[in-house]
Amino acid sequence: MIGELKIISGSAHPELAAEICKYLGMQPGETERTRFSNENMMIQIKDNVRGRDVFVVQPSCAPVSDGIIELLITLDALRSASAGRITAVIPYFPYVRSDKKDRPRISISARLMADLIETSGAERILTMDLHAPQIQGFFRVPVDQLSAAPLLCDHLRRRDLTNTVLVAGDVGEAKDVGGFARRLGLPVAIIDKRRYDDSERAIPTHLVGEVAGMNAIIVDDEVSTGGTLTEAAEYLIQKGAKRVSAVATHPIFVGPAIQRIADSPLEEVIVTNTVPVPESKRHPKITVLSIASFFAEAIRRIYHNESVGAMLG
Amino acid sequence: MIGELKIISGSAHPELAAEICKYLGMQPGETERTRFSNENMMIQIKDNVRGRDVFVVQPSCAPVSDGIIELLITLDALRSASAGRITAVIPYFPYVRSDKKDRPRISISARLMADLIETSGAERILTMDLHAPQIQGFFRVPVDQLSAAPLLCDHLRRRDLTNTVLVAGDVGEAKDVGGFARRLGLPVAIIDKRRYDDSERAIPTHLVGEVAGMNAIIVDDEVSTGGTLTEAAEYLIQKGAKRVSAVATHPIFVGPAIQRIADSPLEEVIVTNTVPVPESKRHPKITVLSIASFFAEAIRRIYHNESVGAMLG
Amino acid sequence: MIGELKIISGSAHPELAAEICKYLGMQPGETERTRFSNENMMIQIKDNVRGRDVFVVQPSCAPVSDGIIELLITLDALRSASAGRITAVIPYFPYVRSDKKDRPRISISARLMADLIETSGAERILTMDLHAPQIQGFFRVPVDQLSAAPLLCDHLRRRDLTNTVLVAGDVGEAKDVGGFARRLGLPVAIIDKRRYDDSERAIPTHLVGEVAGMNAIIVDDEVSTGGTLTEAAEYLIQKGAKRVSAVATHPIFVGPAIQRIADSPLEEVIVTNTVPVPESKRHPKITVLSIASFFAEAIRRIYHNESVGAMLG
Amino acid sequence: MIGELKIISGSAHPELAAEICKYLGMQPGETERTRFSNENMMIQIKDNVRGRDVFVVQPSCAPVSDGIIELLITLDALRSASAGRITAVIPYFPYVRSDKKDRPRISISARLMADLIETSGAERILTMDLHAPQIQGFFRVPVDQLSAAPLLCDHLRRRDLTNTVLVAGDVGEAKDVGGFARRLGLPVAIIDKRRYDDSERAIPTHLVGEVAGMNAIIVDDEVSTGGTLTEAAEYLIQKGAKRVSAVATHPIFVGPAIQRIADSPLEEVIVTNTVPVPESKRHPKITVLSIASFFAEAIRRIYHNESVGAMLG
Amino acid sequence: MIGELKIISGSAHPELAAEICKYLGMQPGETERTRFSNENMMIQIKDNVRGRDVFVVQPSCAPVSDGIIELLITLDALRSASAGRITAVIPYFPYVRSDKKDRPRISISARLMADLIETSGAERILTMDLHAPQIQGFFRVPVDQLSAAPLLCDHLRRRDLTNTVLVAGDVGEAKDVGGFARRLGLPVAIIDKRRYDDSERAIPTHLVGEVAGMNAIIVDDEVSTGGTLTEAAEYLIQKGAKRVSAVATHPIFVGPAIQRIADSPLEEVIVTNTVPVPESKRHPKITVLSIASFFAEAIRRIYHNESVGAMLG
Amino acid sequence: MIGELKIISGSAHPELAAEICKYLGMQPGETERTRFSNENMMIQIKDNVRGRDVFVVQPSCAPVSDGIIELLITLDALRSASAGRITAVIPYFPYVRSDKKDRPRISISARLMADLIETSGAERILTMDLHAPQIQGFFRVPVDQLSAAPLLCDHLRRRDLTNTVLVAGDVGEAKDVGGFARRLGLPVAIIDKRRYDDSERAIPTHLVGEVAGMNAIIVDDEVSTGGTLTEAAEYLIQKGAKRVSAVATHPIFVGPAIQRIADSPLEEVIVTNTVPVPESKRHPKITVLSIASFFAEAIRRIYHNESVGAMLG
Repeated sequence: MIGELKIISGSAHPELAAEICKYLGMQPGETERTRFSNENMMIQIKDNVRGRDVFVVQPSCAPVSDGIIELLITLDALRSASAGRITAVIPYFPYVRSDKKDRPRISISARLMADLIETSGAERILTMDLHAPQIQGFFRVPVDQLSAAPLLCDHLRRRDLTNTVLVAGDVGEAKDVGGFARRLGLPVAIIDKRRYDDSERAIPTHLVGEVAGMNAIIVDDEVSTGGTLTEAAEYLIQKGAKRVSAVATHPIFVGPAIQRIADSPLEEVIVTNTVPVPESKRHPKITVLSIASFFAEAIRRIYHNESVGAMLG
Repeated sequence: MIGELKIISGSAHPELAAEICKYLGMQPGETERTRFSNENMMIQIKDNVRGRDVFVVQPSCAPVSDGIIELLITLDALRSASAGRITAVIPYFPYVRSDKKDRPRISISARLMADLIETSGAERILTMDLHAPQIQGFFRVPVDQLSAAPLLCDHLRRRDLTNTVLVAGDVGEAKDVGGFARRLGLPVAIIDKRRYDDSERAIPTHLVGEVAGMNAIIVDDEVSTGGTLTEAAEYLIQKGAKRVSAVATHPIFVGPAIQRIADSPLEEVIVTNTVPVPESKRHPKITVLSIASFFAEAIRRIYHNESVGAMLG
Repeated sequence: MIGELKIISGSAHPELAAEICKYLGMQPGETERTRFSNENMMIQIKDNVRGRDVFVVQPSCAPVSDGIIELLITLDALRSASAGRITAVIPYFPYVRSDKKDRPRISISARLMADLIETSGAERILTMDLHAPQIQGFFRVPVDQLSAAPLLCDHLRRRDLTNTVLVAGDVGEAKDVGGFARRLGLPVAIIDKRRYDDSERAIPTHLVGEVAGMNAIIVDDEVSTGGTLTEAAEYLIQKGAKRVSAVATHPIFVGPAIQRIADSPLEEVIVTNTVPVPESKRHPKITVLSIASFFAEAIRRIYHNESVGAMLG
Repeated sequence: MIGELKIISGSAHPELAAEICKYLGMQPGETERTRFSNENMMIQIKDNVRGRDVFVVQPSCAPVSDGIIELLITLDALRSASAGRITAVIPYFPYVRSDKKDRPRISISARLMADLIETSGAERILTMDLHAPQIQGFFRVPVDQLSAAPLLCDHLRRRDLTNTVLVAGDVGEAKDVGGFARRLGLPVAIIDKRRYDDSERAIPTHLVGEVAGMNAIIVDDEVSTGGTLTEAAEYLIQKGAKRVSAVATHPIFVGPAIQRIADSPLEEVIVTNTVPVPESKRHPKITVLSIASFFAEAIRRIYHNESVGAMLG
Repeated sequence: MIGELKIISGSAHPELAAEICKYLGMQPGETERTRFSNENMMIQIKDNVRGRDVFVVQPSCAPVSDGIIELLITLDALRSASAGRITAVIPYFPYVRSDKKDRPRISISARLMADLIETSGAERILTMDLHAPQIQGFFRVPVDQLSAAPLLCDHLRRRDLTNTVLVAGDVGEAKDVGGFARRLGLPVAIIDKRRYDDSERAIPTHLVGEVAGMNAIIVDDEVSTGGTLTEAAEYLIQKGAKRVSAVATHPIFVGPAIQRIADSPLEEVIVTNTVPVPESKRHPKITVLSIASFFAEAIRRIYHNESVGAMLG
Repeated sequence: MIGELKIISGSAHPELAAEICKYLGMQPGETERTRFSNENMMIQIKDNVRGRDVFVVQPSCAPVSDGIIELLITLDALRSASAGRITAVIPYFPYVRSDKKDRPRISISARLMADLIETSGAERILTMDLHAPQIQGFFRVPVDQLSAAPLLCDHLRRRDLTNTVLVAGDVGEAKDVGGFARRLGLPVAIIDKRRYDDSERAIPTHLVGEVAGMNAIIVDDEVSTGGTLTEAAEYLIQKGAKRVSAVATHPIFVGPAIQRIADSPLEEVIVTNTVPVPESKRHPKITVLSIASFFAEAIRRIYHNESVGAMLG
C-alpha cells in the first residue's frame, strides 16, 4: 500500500482543492509559492511527501501559461522530493481544443501538454470532459476521465422537460448532445454553420431538426467568449424556439462572455466549477454546480484502489 | 539528401503499391515472405536498403492480425538493415475505431497500434482519413494524413446534385458530413439512433433535418458489415427520400456487406481502394475510385521535401 | 505490499490458466473478449484491477498472430486500468526461434516480440525454456525463466535407463542435450546434418557418437512439424539404435506432426502442456506432463517476493 | 547535407532574429501567431520546412511563461511539420538561476526547462553564458554555449584600465570574475555578504581584497532588479573605490532596475542584447553591445558543419 | 510499504558499509564477486532481494574504472533479480570534477556517469558534497545529497577559532568557503591563481583578503594529489599566516599526496571517510571523521519515508 | 549524404585502427587522452567532427574496465561534439561470454554493455563473431556482425585436410564447429565434459565421435587462459589423435595462456588480431591473421551505403 494521501493545490483554483479536501476530511498540503520580480516561480512543498500518494489540483485557467508552468514545476518538485505516486488533477485540461491538425504546420498542443505533464513527473491524470474522447489516447500514463453529464442531467431533470429539444451548436460538435439526449430521452437539433466569402467565421445557416414552439437547451463542453453560444441562442429564437438555455461543463467565460450572456435571449447557463467562477462573473443567469464531490470520490477510490469506472455511467 | 527512394509492399495490398510505383515510374522493392508451418513469418528484404528512404505500404485488412504482425516485422527488418528513413504507408489504419475508452478497462487500441508501429521502427506515418482527426495526436513521429474528400467530392460533382441532402448515420459521427456539405454546398440531415431496453444495438429513431422528396447521400468514413449503412438507407426511404446512395473512404466490406448492399435500396456506394476490393466484391452498385495517385504524389513530396500540406484543402 | 493477486487468461490456453488457478486456490479473473466481424478484438477486463498484481497467461499457439495481438491489447487494457503490476506469463514465447540474424535484412523477431510486449505494458515476464538462454537478454524488464528439465527428467528416471544414450538432432542444437545428460548421467550422441546441392534442407549425414544396440532418447526444446524429429528417429534406427523415443518441452505439433510421429519408429514423445494439446492430437505415443504446478508455484513466489531462483536447479 | 537554412523568430526578441538574419543575408521564416481570447496560442509555420535546418530564436524574457510556452509550441509545430533538424537558439535561458536544490522539495527548474525543450522537439541548443557551466550537463542533446566575455572584454580594453580592480558581488559567484581577470590581467576583489537575524537578505559585510583608490568594475552574468548590483556599487564607494561600473551579459532589468542604476554611483553598466532592451530602458548609463554577429556566425558554422568550439576562447 | 531493507557493499569501501550497517543494527547482504583471469567480473547477489529496498554502497576510488563497472553490474544484477527499489549510495561520485565542457569536444563525464548509473538500474542516488550543486541536475532520478559541512564545522568549533580566516584555494572554487564562513562566522580570503606563458599550470599570484598573523584554514571539497593544497599552504605562510590547516570532505589522496602533506607547513588536514583511508595513509597530520552515521540515518529515513531534507542545514 | 568519414582509435588497439586506415587510404583522427593521477580519463577529440561519419575502434582487452570507460567517454565526447553518426567498432565485444543468466541474481553483462554503449551515444555497432548469434538481439541500434570464418577457413584450406576432424571442446559450444564443418566438408567430434563431486570445473569425460588416427582441429571463438584448449588437446591425443591444432577468432591469451600452449601437444593455434597480440605473446605456435581489411571494407560499405550483408557468406 502506498503511503498517506496528500492533496496539493496549485494557485489556479484553491477553492476547488479546499472543497475536495473538505469532502475527504483532510487539509491541503502546504506549499510556498514565490514569484520573483523576474517572473520566475519557485514552488516549495513544505510537508514531507516521501512515498506519499500526492494529487496536485490545477485546472487550466487565466493566466494560462503561468498556470501550466506552475503545474510543471510543482510536479517536478514532487518527483525530486521522492513522492510515492503523483497524480495531476486537471479538471479543465490546457489547450484541450487544440486537439487536431486542421491546418498545416501547427502543433496538436493538447498532445504537447500531455507530453509536458508526463515529462515533469505526473504518473496519472484525473480530468473531466475532454473536448473529444480520443484525447485520452494522447497520454501514456493512466487517465481517469470523469463526466459532468450525470450532474448536469440531474439538475435538468428537476425542471419541466416536456416539449424540450437539445441543440448542438455545430455539426462537428454533435457528439455531446447525443449523450445528453440518450440520458434525458429528448430529441435533438443541430445548427449547421457555414463560412461565407473569405472570412474565418462560420455563421448559422441551416437548422437541422425542429425547434419551433419548443424549449431549447444548447449543449456544449465549454463556454469561452460566449460568442458561439449567444449567436446560437439568437438563431434558435429566430427559428421559433420559445425559450433557450444552455449547459456546459467548463465555465471559461473570457472577455465579453458574461455581458454577452446577459444581453442574450438565454435564460440560464448551467455550468460546473472545473475552473473558478469569481463573484464578478456570478450573473443571475449563471448557475454553477460543484463537481468537487466527484473529484473527491474519484481521488478516494484511486487511493484505495477501488474502481473509478464504476462512478461513470 | 537522403538516399534513393524505395517502396516496399507488404502482402496486404500489392495492387495499390504497384499502382503507386507506376505513378512514380519505379518498381517496388523485392522482398521474400515465408510463412512457416508454425505460422511464423519471415520477411527478408532482398535489396540493399542502407541509407535509402523506404516506404512500406500496408493498409489494415483481413487477415487483420497477420497484416499487423507482418508490418511490424518488416519495419524491424528495415531498421536492422540500416534503412535511412522508414515511413509506414497505412492507407487504412488498424483498429482505427478503437480510439476512445467508452467503457472501463479496455485498450485504446488505435493508440496501442501507433505505439507498436513506432516501437518497430517507423519514423513517419502516411495515412488517410483517420476515424477522428484527434487520432493524429496518438503518434510521436510526424504523420501526414491525406483526405479522400476531394476525390469523392469531384466524383459527386459530376452528378446532378440539385435537391440533394447529405446524411450522417449517427449524431456522434456528424463531423465528416459537415466537411462534405461545405465542399459541395449541400444541406445535411442526421439520423438519431437510440438504444432500447437492454440491447446493445442502437436503431434509427428520429430524423434530424429533412429528406422527404430529396436525393440522399449518406457520408461515412468506412463501410464494414454494411449493417449501419443499409439500415440507414431503408430508414431514409421510409422517411420519404427519393433515392439513396453513399460515399465512404474505406471499403472494408466484411461478412454480409456486399449482399446487404445488393439487397438494399442503395443505388450506389462510392469508395476508394485504401484496402483491396477483390473481384468477388465488385458488385455493380459499388464504385471504386483509386487513391494511388494521391499516395504517389505524397510520397514524391515527402522524398523531395516538398509540402504535403499544400495537397490538402 | 502490492494488492491482491489476479490471474487473467487470454484465449490461447484457458485450461492451463485454470489449472494454475486451481493450484493457487483461486478463480481466474473475468474478461470479455469480442471479435468483431472486421476481425478487430476488444478485450474488457470485467473485474477492478487497480493496484492488483496481475498475471496474464498466454502462450504462443495457433492462430499465432491473433494470439500475439490479443496479448498486447490485454496488457494495454490492464495498464490503462491502473493495474499495480503486470506480468506476462508466456510458457511458449512467440517467434522464439527467430532469435538471430542468420541471413541479411531480416528481423530478430523474438527480440521484436520482447519489445512489443514491453511497449504494451508488461513489467515482468514469466516463461519457460527459451530456445537459447541468451534470449533472456532481449528484455529490459525482469524475466523469470522456468525449466521443464526437472519434470521431464523425473519422468525419464522412472524408466529403465541402462544402455541409453541421449541424442541431439543437430550439431547446432547440442546444448540442451548436455543439460539432460548431466542430470541423468547418460552419454550423448549428435546427428550431424549437412545441406547438399542447392536445397535448403539439411539431412542427417554423420552420427557423432554411438547408438548401435542402445536405447536412444532424442532431446529438443520443441516439436513443430515433427519432420526433424521423425527423420532423426529413422536415422538412429538405421544406425542400429534398438528403441527410440523423444522428450521436448513445447508440443507445437503443427501440420502433419502427429501423423508423422504415428508412422515413425518413435515409441514415445514426452512433452509438457506449455501450449494446448487438444484431444485430436492425443495419440497414444504422446505423453503430456503438466507444468501448471511449476507456473503456479512461480507466481506464488513472485507475488510473495520469495525466490524463484530457488526453484531452478 | 541537410536542407536549406531557416531562421524562425518567436515573439520574444524579433529584433535580434532580424539582426542575425541580416548578418546571414537572409529573411526570417514567416510564422503566424494567434492569441485567442482564452489566452491559448496557435503558431503556424507559414513556409514549408520539410527537411530544412531550422533555428528558432527565443530568449527568455517577460512575459516569461508565455515565452516558454510559445517556444515549446513552435518546436512541436516544427517537428510535426517534418523539419530536418531543429535548434533552439536561446540567448538567455529560462530559469537559468534555478540550477540547484538549495532548499528541500523544490524543482531544479533549469533542468526541467531543458527537459521540456527536448520533449517538444529541439535537437540542439545554442545559448550564451549559462549561470553555471555545469548547466550544460542538464541536456541530453548537443549544446553550443557561446560566451559574451570576448565582446565585453574588447569593449573594456578600449578604456584606461590602469589602477582597476574587477569585483565579484558574492563569494559564491566569484567564478566569472576569474575569467575576466585572466583575460584582462587585472586583480580581483570579492564582496562577502552575510545574512543577519532571520532575514532572507544577505548584505555586504566584508570586502575580500582591495579597492581603495581604484576603479572598480563589477562582473556578473545578469542584472535583474539591480538591487544586488547597486548595493555592491555603494559598498565599494564606501570602501574607497574611486569610480564604479559594471559588466554583465544578460540585461534582464526588471522592476526598479533602471531607476536604481540611475540613482546609484555606477557610472556605466555594459550589457549585451541577449534579451531586448527597449527604448524606455536605454538610460545613458546603459551600454548595450550586440551579440547578433556571434549568434549569426555560430548558426552559419553549425549549418556548414564547421567548428563552433573554434569561436570560443 | 516496500519490502525489507537490504544493504549491499561493493568492493570499494566495505568498511563504510559495515559501519553503516552497524548503526542500523543489521548485516550487509551477501554477494559473491568473481574476477576471472580475463578481468571480467561476475557479481552474484546471494540473498533473495525480490521486492526489497536495496542500497548499494560504492564510492568512487582506485581502481576507478573497475569500481564503476562493478557498480553498474551490481545494479543490473539487482534489477534482474527483481529488487523492489534500488538506491546507489555513492559517497564520492565518479568523475565529479568533469562537470563542465571547459574545452571543445570533451565529455561532461559526471553527466555520463549519471546516465550510466541510471541505465544500469539505479532508481535513486544518495551522495555527498558534489563538486558543484548543479550536478544534482544531471540526474533524472531523485537524488539526496548530504553535506559533511556540519560534521567538519562541529569538529572545527572545538578548536580555538579566534584570529582565524577561511581560505579558498582558487577564485573559481570560492563557493564552499562561503558556506563554512557563514556557519562559523569567520572571514574569508581567496588565492587568485594565474597561468603564465604556455604552461597549463596556474600558480598563486595574488591573495585576495588578509591572512597575515592569522590562523588559516583552507577549505576544499576534495584532496587529490595534494599539490594544490600544499602549494596554497606554502603561499599562505609566505603571506604571513601563522598556522595553516585544511578541511575537505573527500580524501582521495593519490600519488604523492601524503608525502606532500607531511612535508608541507600544513598542521592538520581534516577529512571524512567517503573513500577509504588505508592505514598506510594515516599520517599523524590526517584526521578522518566518519560520515557513516550520516549515511545510516539518511538510509533509515529514506526507507521509512521520513524527510532527509530535515537532516540538512 | 552524411559528412566526411573519420576513424578514431581508442587506446586499446591503435595498430588495428592504423591498419584499417591504411586500407582506406586515410589517417586516424587525432585525439588527446589524459589520465589524471586520480585515474580519471579525459578524451579530447582534436579534429572538428560536426556532421562527420565517425567510427571509434576499441575492442575489449586488458585493462578491460579502463577500455570500456574510455570507449564510453569517447562516444559521449563525440555526441556532444555533434558528430553526424557514431559507430562503435568493437572487434571483440566486452563481457561477450556473460550472455545468459546461468545462475540466479547475476547480470547478463553483455546486454548491460550493449545498453551502456548505446546510452553513451553509439548509433551503430560493427563487431565480429559474438559468442552466440543471439547477442545481436541485445542491441536496439543496427549491428553489423562480421565473421572471421572465411578468413580462418581459407587459411586451413591451404593445409592438407585429408583425414582431419574438427572438434568442439564442449557439448554446449558445438555450434561454431558446425559452421566450419560445413565450409570445409569435414567431420566433427565433440568432447563431453562433466563436473564431478562439488568442484566447479568440468573435465573431459567422453569423446562423442572419432579422432583416433586423425588430425584434429579444435574450433572455438576465443582463447582466454588456454586451459580449456590445452586440456582438450591432451584429451584428443590420449584418444588417439595424431596431431592437434586449433582455430579461434579472438586471441585473449591471458595469464598462463601462452606457456600452456607452448607446453601442450598443440602444433598451431590460428587466431586473428581482433585484440592485440603483443610481441611477447608471438610464440612460434601462434599464427595471427589480420582482419583489418574486413573491417576496412565494412566501414567503406557502411559509409557508402553499400551492402555489408553481401560480405558475409
